[in-house]
This record gives sequence, structure tokens and C-alpha cells, in this order.
Amino acid sequence: MNQTRLNAVTNQMRKQHMAQLIVSDPASIYYLTGEWIHPGERLLVLYLNLNGAKILLLNALFPLALQTDSGLTLKYFKDTEDGVSILAELMADEGDIGVDKNWPARFLLPLMEKLPHASFINGSFTIDSIRMVKDQAEQHLMRKASALNDQAMQLLQEAVSHDATELELSAVLKEAYRSLGADDLSFTPIIAFGANAALPHHDTGSTRLKPGDAIICDIGCVKEDYCSDMTRTFFYKTVSDKAREVYELVRKANLAAIEEVRPGARFCDIDAAARKIIEEGGYGPYFTHRTGHAIGLEVHEFGDVSSGNTARLEPGMIFSIEPGIYLDTEFGVRIEDLVLVTDTGCEVLNHFTKDLVVIG
Amino acid sequence: MNQTRLNAVTNQMRKQHMAQLIVSDPASIYYLTGEWIHPGERLLVLYLNLNGAKILLLNALFPLALQTDSGLTLKYFKDTEDGVSILAELMADEGDIGVDKNWPARFLLPLMEKLPHASFINGSFTIDSIRMVKDQAEQHLMRKASALNDQAMQLLQEAVSHDATELELSAVLKEAYRSLGADDLSFTPIIAFGANAALPHHDTGSTRLKPGDAIICDIGCVKEDYCSDMTRTFFYKTVSDKAREVYELVRKANLAAIEEVRPGARFCDIDAAARKIIEEGGYGPYFTHRTGHAIGLEVHEFGDVSSGNTARLEPGMIFSIEPGIYLDTEFGVRIEDLVLVTDTGCEVLNHFTKDLVVIG
Repeated sequence: MNQTRLNAVTNQMRKQHMAQLIVSDPASIYYLTGEWIHPGERLLVLYLNLNGAKILLLNALFPLALQTDSGLTLKYFKDTEDGVSILAELMADEGDIGVDKNWPARFLLPLMEKLPHASFINGSFTIDSIRMVKDQAEQHLMRKASALNDQAMQLLQEAVSHDATELELSAVLKEAYRSLGADDLSFTPIIAFGANAALPHHDTGSTRLKPGDAIICDIGCVKEDYCSDMTRTFFYKTVSDKAREVYELVRKANLAAIEEVRPGARFCDIDAAARKIIEEGGYGPYFTHRTGHAIGLEVHEFGDVSSGNTARLEPGMIFSIEPGIYLDTEFGVRIEDLVLVTDTGCEVLNHFTKDLVVIG
Repeated sequence: MNQTRLNAVTNQMRKQHMAQLIVSDPASIYYLTGEWIHPGERLLVLYLNLNGAKILLLNALFPLALQTDSGLTLKYFKDTEDGVSILAELMADEGDIGVDKNWPARFLLPLMEKLPHASFINGSFTIDSIRMVKDQAEQHLMRKASALNDQAMQLLQEAVSHDATELELSAVLKEAYRSLGADDLSFTPIIAFGANAALPHHDTGSTRLKPGDAIICDIGCVKEDYCSDMTRTFFYKTVSDKAREVYELVRKANLAAIEEVRPGARFCDIDAAARKIIEEGGYGPYFTHRTGHAIGLEVHEFGDVSSGNTARLEPGMIFSIEPGIYLDTEFGVRIEDLVLVTDTGCEVLNHFTKDLVVIG
């Protein structure tokens, strides 16, 4: 166990009068124990109790070699046993029980039946709020992952050519990550040409590139367990006056939001700074999503950069700033960087140019 | 909507007196609507009510172009709105409400609070039991995905060479899938050398191959939305008498289980047939997992081939048969095929040899 992180979590549990917590998210379990376990559809739970219990309940198919001083108790079950019943026997049928936000109904509903006197609540905040603030080691790894992402974007840009399809560029990108030493993609890359770029979550497909197209590249990799995520929008051969105007507006929005990042600012302030620029430019209704999201061991972590989030920034938080404008049937522009909140402002983790680039 | 599939699901709902069903699994939504939506952490629900309502509730970031006669009502919400509240307003606060087995606590718990008079149950069986039986079109696609997997195994076998690491072979495999036209991996490949092969869920790493090693290759791809999954165990340079004995036992167990596959047989009978061979051979305690799992749009679907599953096989079901023997610190052997239940027996979807192969 990482005692510093565990103590921070149990402090949060105490504050919320939550005596028991079911941690099920593999990334959170890794964060606390240093063990990455991919249980697939099988039950995996780190059970924490303020009475001191720290029990990792897992299928015997995933044996761990723990250090004897880890303070963690391992409890294995077999495919032929009911893991939820074993979990229920470890637990107290009383008070507020926190469960991870992603814990699936197939475990939660039967556990609720077995512990009818307890109240079940979404307990993810206790651990997600700790994970939001990255320690020095994590900041170092986040910089590394984003440095790789900058290099991959360069290789991707160089591969843009006449008649390429989105999927062909996506294959080039995957090979680029492999050659650069990335461990994995952090998400399925979005490569969107022309009118497809007007869809923020376009499924990369067999559309072919043509002159005048916008090219949205929203890409990220995993390096040593930490994620990167960056978007750039290029143009192919030519760029229309309208597209140039939209591009510059998005770039200004990206920069204005970054300018606001410092300890004490609220997430909603960052969102407002980007949105204000785009609204003043007359494109408010076409910025259809939040400005960003926290990132770390997972590409989307707890912490929205959105109008509804009044939480305040703290040094060590890392999140994306990714304003966009989407003009249905025409084109779209999104420019995204990751930023790390420092003691006085912020460090932008991406260094790939945000100047308008016309390729070819 | 695929009316045949939808009718089968609503029949199941009726049988179970479940007037309302929340379908949240993207694969199930695709199965019923033909739309693949990857909502990430955002809410996505297909709400079915026996009164006829068929409502797809999704974030406005994922706009769909539906045919007007689809019979499906689209309801969009924005990032700034609370999707669960909008869902609750569509629903009746009474009776049994089925929810998908994987629906996360962050949606389920607040919905339970908003509908305090209803009972929430795991409703996945209503749709998973239909998805288990593949129709002709699905069978065709499953054959295609497994044919690709056979070819990829061949390319992987040819790439085995002195001093290769597990991860290097994994990279070769990924490139093989790409060149063969696979759309994606169906899971992270497991490539395990020597003592690593004794771990059924080994994380492919930087171990180097050496003479005498067993090489477990558990691999699968996605082609046109359907998954393949096959395991072969090779040996490098030489094979010990003990390894040969274990290999032949696992092969016999694989064949004995396949022999039992026919309509009316029970999943537990298939498991028992494989287990009996391995127990009689003296290795019972080292076959540490179920014999297999259903597969289709997802690599692990509802339907365990295990001692606890007394459900009976029907034509059209597709599942894996993958007995294994794992000798801690020594080696392991697993041999896995996918089988399709036919009217009279079964069709094995994999054709890669199961003879003992010593490479190099």
C-alpha cells in the first residue's frame, strides 16, 4: 500500500462519515496498492474500513506476490464461489457504505440485498479527489506521456497526404506510438476530415482527404500507466477565411482559458474564460461541450472543466483545455492541451504548435 | 430497430413481469438498434417499456441519423443537464425495473433515489439470453473473425524466434491483425513464456524466450463488430516428457468437451467432460478456471461453460472451450477453440492445428 495515499483516502472517509468503502476501479486499486489487476467481468474489490481493515478480494486466477509489510490482506475466491457473498461476510450491515462510481449493477444490487440495513452511496469522491492532485512522481510521468504525444502528432502531421483516409492516418499514428515507445493508446484516436470534423466524437472511418478539409486529430497514448491527450486541427492545401476565423477564435479561447489556470481559480472560471471568447466571436452555440476533463491514470478522470463545477484548483491537478467550434455539415476546430496547476499558475504539458498549419 | 430481436427481448420482459428495462451496454444497444455509440463516462440508455416506449437517451455530443421508420424515439441531453433526472421523468415509479448488469453505480444509485417505489433488479438476462443465440448473419461474421484469428496465429507462430520477448511477439501479432484486415483486438493478447505460462492471466511482458519454454498465445481480434478468441500453446526447441504429457491431456480435454456439444446438453456437461479428462490424468487441481465463455459482439458474453451453469445449449450459441493446466513456477498449457452449436452437434470455428508444435 502507498501509505500517504491511503491516509488521504481514509481522512476523506472520516470527513464523510463513511466507515466502509468499496474500491473497485482497477486504476484506483493500482493507485493505492501498486497492483494493476484486469479482472474482466470478475469481481475485484479493495475493501477499506475505518476500523483498519484493508482487504483485497480477488479471483484466484489473479495471484499476487505482495510484500509482507504491505498491510494488505488478500482474500481469494474461485470461479465456483460467489464473490459478493464473501464480500458481504467481511462487511458491517450498517451506516453509509461508499462504492466506486463505476461498480456495476451485477455486484451492487446483490450486495444491497445482502446488507439491507446499510445505505449505499457513490463513494468515489473519497478517492477521486485525492487522485486529482498528482504527486511529483505522477507529474513526471504525465510530462513524459505528453512529450511522446507531441512527437506522435508531429509524425502524424508528416503523414498527411493526398487521398489518405482517416483510418490510414490512424494506422500511421498507432505505428508512430509503437516506434516512440508508448505502451498503449489512451483512447481510440479521433481523426476527422472535413464535415466529419463537425462531430466532436466522430468515429474515424474511410473518408478520404481533399483540399480545403479541416483535419481534427484528437490523440493520446499511455506511457508507464499515465495518459496523454491532445488535439490539433490542421488544414489541407487551403483554408477558407471562415475556417481561419474559427481557428483563431478557438486558439484564443484555448489561450484565454490557460491564462486563468492558477490555484484558487474555479473549474467553472476556466470554462467561462474559453466560452466568453467564443461567444463574443459569435459562435457560442457551436461550442457544444465542456472545456475539459481531469486526466491521469485514466484518460477521463474526476474533475470536469465545466460551468457546473465550482471546485477550486490546487497545485498538482492536471486537466485538459479543449474548446471547439463545430459547424454542422461544414467543418470543426478543436485545440486541446493538458495543463498542470503549479503554485503560481500553470505548466502546459503540450508543446506542439497551435499556430494555424496548412499542410501540403 | 431490429424488430425480431426487439420482440424477443420484450417477450422475455413479459415472462419476467418486468415492465421496464434500462439497456445501457453499448453492444446490446447496437444489437437492437444498429447504432454503436461509445459514450465514455456519459449516460447512454435505451429505455424499453412494455407499453411500447422505445427511447434512446443520449448526450447531444453523439447525434444520430435515424431512419424515420425506426420506431425509436431519440432524446438528447447536454453536458450541462442531469441525464439521470431526465431518465427518471420518462419512467414509472413502480414494479420491477431491469437494469443492465454493467450499469454503473453513479447512475443506478441516483435513479434508485428518484424512483423509491420501484424495485431494481439485474435485467440483463432478458437481452443476454437473446444475444447468446446467434442468427445466420452473426454466425457468418463469427466465422470470418475466427478465420482471421487462425491466420494471425500462423503469422505469430512464424515470428517466434530466439531471444524474442513476449511484448515483441505481441507487437508482431498486432501488425499481423492490421495486415489481415482485422478492425481491432478483441482483448489484450496474452503471450506467456515458460513459468509465465503457469499464470492464466499473465501480463505480457519483457521475458525472453529460451529453449524448452512453453509459449501460450491467447489471442483474438474484432472483425465487423464480432470477436474471435483462440489459444494455442507451442514449445520452443524442445519439450520435456512432462510438458508433452500435460499437453496431450489438455488436448484430449479440449476434444472431449467439443464432443459433448449438441443441442440439449448443459453447459456444466461440457465443463465436466473437459474436467474429467484432466482429473483422471491426475492434474485436476491445476485446471483452475471454468472451461469457457460465450462470445459474440463482446469477447466475454453471458453464458459460462462452468460446473454451476445448468442451462441447456441451443443451436446458434457460440462459446469457447479452453481447458488448461497450470503448474506454478514450471509452465502451463491451454488450448482454446470457439464452437458453434448446430442442429446436431457443433461446428468448430478454429482450424489451426492442435497437434503439439515444437518451434525452431
